Amino acid sequence: MVRIKLKSEKIPFILLTNGGGITEKEKAIELSKILDFNLSEDQVILSHSPMRSLVPTYQNSQILVLGGAGDNCRKVAESYGFNRVVIPNDIVAWDQSIWPFTKLSQEDLKLIKKIDFSKEPIKAIMMFHDSRDWGRDLQITLDVLRSKDGYVGKLENNDVANLTNIPLYFSNPDIIWSNDFPISRYAQGSFRICLDFLAEVITGHKLKYKLFGKPEPVTYLYAAEKLRKFAMKFTDENVPNRRIYAVGDNPASDIAGANRAGWTSILVRTGVFSGKVNDPINPANHVVDNILHAVEWIFSKEEGI
Amino acid sequence: MVRIKLKSEKIPFILLTNGGGITEKEKAIELSKILDFNLSEDQVILSHSPMRSLVPTYQNSQILVLGGAGDNCRKVAESYGFNRVVIPNDIVAWDQSIWPFTKLSQEDLKLIKKIDFSKEPIKAIMMFHDSRDWGRDLQITLDVLRSKDGYVGKLENNDVANLTNIPLYFSNPDIIWSNDFPISRYAQGSFRICLDFLAEVITGHKLKYKLFGKPEPVTYLYAAEKLRKFAMKFTDENVPNRRIYAVGDNPASDIAGANRAGWTSILVRTGVFSGKVNDPINPANHVVDNILHAVEWIFSKEEGI
Repeated sequence: MVRIKLKSEKIPFILLTNGGGITEKEKAIELSKILDFNLSEDQVILSHSPMRSLVPTYQNSQILVLGGAGDNCRKVAESYGFNRVVIPNDIVAWDQSIWPFTKLSQEDLKLIKKIDFSKEPIKAIMMFHDSRDWGRDLQITLDVLRSKDGYVGKLENNDVANLTNIPLYFSNPDIIWSNDFPISRYAQGSFRICLDFLAEVITGHKLKYKLFGKPEPVTYLYAAEKLRKFAMKFTDENVPNRRIYAVGDNPASDIAGANRAGWTSILVRTGVFSGKVNDPINPANHVVDNILHAVEWIFSKEEGI
Repeated sequence: MVRIKLKSEKIPFILLTNGGGITEKEKAIELSKILDFNLSEDQVILSHSPMRSLVPTYQNSQILVLGGAGDNCRKVAESYGFNRVVIPNDIVAWDQSIWPFTKLSQEDLKLIKKIDFSKEPIKAIMMFHDSRDWGRDLQITLDVLRSKDGYVGKLENNDVANLTNIPLYFSNPDIIWSNDFPISRYAQGSFRICLDFLAEVITGHKLKYKLFGKPEPVTYLYAAEKLRKFAMKFTDENVPNRRIYAVGDNPASDIAGANRAGWTSILVRTGVFSGKVNDPINPANHVVDNILHAVEWIFSKEEGI
């Protein structure tokens, strides 16, 4: 019903998630199958999509991409235009003693890039998705952050790192996420918490980093621009000032970000939020039981204009 | 030379390490080969050896043992007399959604115990060695610590954990350890730091736990008793009040523990310590270049008596 209404009335919409680890195109195909509805890759914004904005800076610099299965996130980063992407297993393959507990399988070794990290420095670290090996990734991330000019295994300033030398970016701020398990699971933000505290214990310095994903404003600016471009496919008029409605189940990410961006926020009760009235910390403009009621409410608002 | 002197003069000695993950017998065989010297398992004390003292309490209770490769640490715990030992992969095999990022291999599955953790509660958690999968182990440890009476997947007090319900034991307090890599690697103590901070962020409560290994007094008491028993094999007289000498390279563990235990501490320059004079925070009774000089110094002291 939602599907038919959206399709028939040609209401431009996009899907904005804190998930990722695959390309927007792959995600669009995955979601199209689930929804039985042809979704374009232009309609899918993943947590790391706005990190495309880093391409001009790091296009030809060696960057370390963290997270995801196999080398999926390397492929995502390359699809954005980063030309020299390495993953933690490349570093383990270069020198196993950096984290002797990670045993590379035959399959892992097939995905490896052979690089001498003592000669080719890492210029930035970008976490694209959940770490599959927290110990390895905590160790290697701090090794790079503490390194002299990104040369792995060399220490900056005689073991006193300023931790600002190598920029660090996270795609997803969430501390927890939900799946079939009855209690929420630890997300990329929990990894960041561990890194943050460990960095301080080891170096005495605070970690510095930049966040992407919801509820970061950079992500909403990126999404608004994508939505505007997508909308222009279906209309001749330029629509820069149309109202944007955001429907989400997570007050701390979906609603907080939408409110901050000046969008009209609608909170549904089908996920993280299950309260009766509204979220006390990040209240939405409107609360409904499900996505269908959200769409109906949006129609009622727009038809009245 | 050291070997010949120790052997010929029958000076009773033991080896006390913060390492582990295998049985004392396996470690003795491993070291005997390296040293080309027949070491008895009674002469080897690993970080988790004093955890034998927990056997009377948990002999027939289900305990979760963390760390080590495969199911090695389960075997170690069973060799101590714990009869119902489970490992994190048993829990992942029971419900993959608890940590979907850990993919169990065919080899992993062979080592699995099939248990319904919603029906058989975990009564204590013991970390025997370095985690091979920090994300999995942080998540599962906090799930158990926050659980109602050790039933995995159920929360104590409506998501407010007191974190004292299920006892937690660590075998090794070290934050870092040294291997071939030019900078020290993160040890079990770093995992504990992550757990500690994550627990506080998630629950608002401080983690409570008990430490074994060097420099914990419990480990030195255990070692002294083992040394006394071992010494009695070679002499008819009971030797309870003989002086104990401790040789070590790590001021924060070896020397700190020895000093606290009232042993005579000797710091060598062949490892963690490389200072000229003495360690400022944990000064040893005597500082020498290497183990040979340490043994010669001990002989000079004992011959003078």
